[in-house]
Amino acid sequence: MNPHVRHENSAADLDAAMQIAIGAAESARGFTSPNPAVGAVVLDAAGRIAGVGMTQPPGGPHAEVVALREAGDAARGGTAVVTLEPCNHHGRTGPCSRALLDAGVVAVHYAVGDPNPEAAGGAETLVSAGVEVTSGLRAQDVERGPLRAWLHRQRTGRPHVTWKYAATLDGRSAAADGTSQWITGPEARERVHADRAKLDAIVVGTGTVLADDPRLTARTPDGSLAAHQPVRVVVGLGDIPPGARVLDDSAPTLVLRTRDVDEVLAALADYTDVLLEGGPRLAGAFLAAGRVDRIQAYLAPLVLGAGASAVSEAGVQTIDGALRFRHESVETIGPDLLLSLVPAVSENPDSHRT
Amino acid sequence: MNPHVRHENSAADLDAAMQIAIGAAESARGFTSPNPAVGAVVLDAAGRIAGVGMTQPPGGPHAEVVALREAGDAARGGTAVVTLEPCNHHGRTGPCSRALLDAGVVAVHYAVGDPNPEAAGGAETLVSAGVEVTSGLRAQDVERGPLRAWLHRQRTGRPHVTWKYAATLDGRSAAADGTSQWITGPEARERVHADRAKLDAIVVGTGTVLADDPRLTARTPDGSLAAHQPVRVVVGLGDIPPGARVLDDSAPTLVLRTRDVDEVLAALADYTDVLLEGGPRLAGAFLAAGRVDRIQAYLAPLVLGAGASAVSEAGVQTIDGALRFRHESVETIGPDLLLSLVPAVSENPDSHRT
Ligand SMILES: NC(=O)c1ccc[n+]([C@@H]2O[C@H](COP(=O)([O-])OP(=O)(O)OC[C@H]3O[C@@H](n4cnc5c(N)ncnc54)[C@H](OP(=O)(O)O)[C@@H]3O)[C@@H](O)[C@H]2O)c1
Ligand SMILES: NC(=O)c1ccc[n+]([C@@H]2O[C@H](COP(=O)([O-])OP(=O)(O)OC[C@H]3O[C@@H](n4cnc5c(N)ncnc54)[C@H](OP(=O)(O)O)[C@@H]3O)[C@@H](O)[C@H]2O)c1
Repeated sequence: MNPHVRHENSAADLDAAMQIAIGAAESARGFTSPNPAVGAVVLDAAGRIAGVGMTQPPGGPHAEVVALREAGDAARGGTAVVTLEPCNHHGRTGPCSRALLDAGVVAVHYAVGDPNPEAAGGAETLVSAGVEVTSGLRAQDVERGPLRAWLHRQRTGRPHVTWKYAATLDGRSAAADGTSQWITGPEARERVHADRAKLDAIVVGTGTVLADDPRLTARTPDGSLAAHQPVRVVVGLGDIPPGARVLDDSAPTLVLRTRDVDEVLAALADYTDVLLEGGPRLAGAFLAAGRVDRIQAYLAPLVLGAGASAVSEAGVQTIDGALRFRHESVETIGPDLLLSLVPAVSENPDSHRT
Repeated sequence: MNPHVRHENSAADLDAAMQIAIGAAESARGFTSPNPAVGAVVLDAAGRIAGVGMTQPPGGPHAEVVALREAGDAARGGTAVVTLEPCNHHGRTGPCSRALLDAGVVAVHYAVGDPNPEAAGGAETLVSAGVEVTSGLRAQDVERGPLRAWLHRQRTGRPHVTWKYAATLDGRSAAADGTSQWITGPEARERVHADRAKLDAIVVGTGTVLADDPRLTARTPDGSLAAHQPVRVVVGLGDIPPGARVLDDSAPTLVLRTRDVDEVLAALADYTDVLLEGGPRLAGAFLAAGRVDRIQAYLAPLVLGAGASAVSEAGVQTIDGALRFRHESVETIGPDLLLSLVPAVSENPDSHRT
C-alpha cells in the first residue's frame, strides 16, 4: 500500500493512543444512546496524532469518521486506534470499515470486538483489504469503562443496573432519627451528580420519594441542571404525592406501579445504563432477583450504631445464602471510599474476560 | 574520628536500611512488652549491612546492642539506623547511646524521638560526642507501624485500642439466623490469627461469649497455638458458663464484671496493644466513650439484608452526631478489604504528624 518504509508505532505509542480514545469515549457517554460511546484516534504515517473522535448523538457520525475527518489527508498510510471494532453495516452512516479504507489507513487496533452480529465483520473486511488489524488493546479498561453498560445490554438484552448507595462503616444509610444528609462528603456528592449526567435512567422506590422527596436530577456544582438528564423512575404500588419534586418538569419521570423487578426492567428495555438509587427495600428486591450488575458503595468513615441499614429484605436467612460479589476497584473520594463490585458468579458468558 | 575520607551513605541506602529496621521491629512486636519493639541496622564504614537487631524480651538487650554485637569491629566508623531514638538511661541494660559511642559509630539516623523523658536525651548525648545525628526517616511508617501502640500509651497513659470487626457491604456481622461463620475468607482469618499473636490483650463482651463460645487464641494455619498468646478479657455484669472455651487453659483470661469502659482500660493499664473484638454492643460502648484508637474493618463482598449490624447503641441519634474517623489505609486480603481508620479529631497532641 505504501511503497516507502513505514513508521512502526511502538506498543507504548499505541497504548497512549488507546488511552486517549478511551477518554474520548468516556466524554461521549450519556449522549449516544442507543449507540455505544466509542472513541477513536487516527495517527498519521509518522505516528503523530492527526485526529481524535467520539460517537456523535444518534444520526451523527461514528467516532472513526469524526477522527478521520479531523485527520484529512494525514490519515493516508496511518493507523486508527478504536475502542470498539469498526462497524461493517450501512446504518444511518456508512460502514466505518469502508471509511477507514477510503481514507487509506493501513493499520487498525481496536480494544473490543462488536458482539452485535449486524455490525460485526468490520475487522474481517479490513483484513481482506490488506489492513493490519489487532484486537484486545486495553480491552478490560473499555469493557469496565465506556462500553460496560452497552456490552451488557448487547449480551443479555437487559439494561445494565448499577446499585449505588452511601453508608457508614456499620452499614447505615440514615441515622436513628431518619436524617441522612450528609453521610458522604461534598466530593462524593459532586461525583454522583457528574455520574447521573451520563445515565439513561435513575430508579427509586416510593419509600425514598415519601421519605426524602428527592429531585433525582443531575446538577452541576453551582446547582444548575446538567445538559443531559436521565429519566426518573419511581417503583411501587403506592401513591406518591402530586407535589413530589420527582414529578417536576426538570426531567421526564416514569411511575411504574409494580413490585416486580423484571417488569421494571422490561419497562426500561430501551435504556442501556440504569442507576438504582435505593432505598434499602427496592435495593433488596433487585439484589434478591439477581438484577444488580454492579454495586457502587460510597463508604463514609462514620459510625452511627443505629438507623436503617443500606439493604433490607434481600431474601437471605443464613450466612451460606449471602449474595456474593467481587471487589473490582477502590477509589478515595475526599474523606470517603468508593467501592465498585460485580457479581461473584455472573450469568454473563463473557464474565471470565473481566 | 576517622582520618580517611568516609563513605557517604546515599539517602536511598539509608531508606533501605530503615525499611529493614522496621521489618526487624515488626518481627519483635508482641514479645517486648512493656518495652517498645525497636529495630536497628548497623552499616559498616563502607555502607554495607554489618548487623541487624530487634528488641529482645524484657531483660534482654535493646535492638542497637543486638545489631552492634552482630557487627562487631565492622561498626567502627559506621552508621546506625534505628526506628526509635537510642535510649540514654541505665535500665537493666546500659544506655544505647553509650554502646553506639563505644562501638565507634559515627552517624545515627533514627525515625522517631523518644517521648519518655527518662529514656530521652540519647540524641543529645550522641551529638555532643561528635556523632552525626538525624531524625524523621520513615517516621510515619514507624508511628503507624511497630511503635503505634507503645507511642500511644506513652502519650496518653492508656493502652492503644484497635476495634476489629468483620462485616458485609450492608454492615451486618451475622445473618438473620445468627450465623456468622464465615463472613470473611480464609486469608482474612489467617491474618487475624497472625495479628492476635502480637497483641497484649483481646477484649469481648459477655454477649459474644454466650453467642459464639469463641476461644480467642492465636492459632497458626494448622490449628496449633502460636508462641505468644494475648490475655483474653471478657467484659460484662452477667455470668458466662464455667465451661466456656475462653476459660480453658490455652491462655490467661480476665473476667471484668463491669460495663464501664474506663474501668476496663484501667484494669488493662499494664498492657499496651489491646484488640477489641466485639460484639456490637461492647464496640458501641467503646466508640461512644471515644476509646477506639483505630478501626480495622474487614469488609466482605457480601450482602445479607438482615442480621445484626456491626455496631449497636453508640449513643448517636442524628447524622450530625455521627462518630467520625479518617481512612488511613486500604488493603486487599483475598476476596475481602481491610480498611484501617483512626479518629478524625484526635486528642493525641501529635496527631498532626500522621
Ligand atoms: N443512603 C442511601 O444511599 C439511600 C438511598 C435511597 C434511600 N435511602 C433511605 O431509604 C429510606 C427509604 O427506605 P425504603 O426501603 O422505604 O425505600 P425504597 O426501597 O425506595 O422504597 C420501598 C418501597 O418500594 C416499593 N417497592 C417496589 N418494588 C418493591 C419490591 N420488589 N419489594 C419491596 N418494595 C418494593 C414499595 O412501595 P409500595 O408500597 O408503594 O409498593 C416499598 O414500600 C429513606 O430513609 C431514605 O433516606 C438511602
Ligand atoms: N463479625 C464480628 O466481627 C463479630 C465480633 C464479635 C461478635 N460478633 C457477634 O455479635 C453477637 C453478640 O452481640 P452482643 O452485642 O451481645 O455482644 P457483645 O458486645 O460482645 O456483648 C454485649 C454484652 O457486653 C456487656 N457489656 C459490657 N460493657 C458494656 C457496655 N458498656 N454497654 C453494653 N454492654 C456492655 C453486656 O453484658 P452484661 O449483660 O453481662 O453486662 C452486654 O450484654 C454475636 O452474634 C457474635 O457473633 C460479631
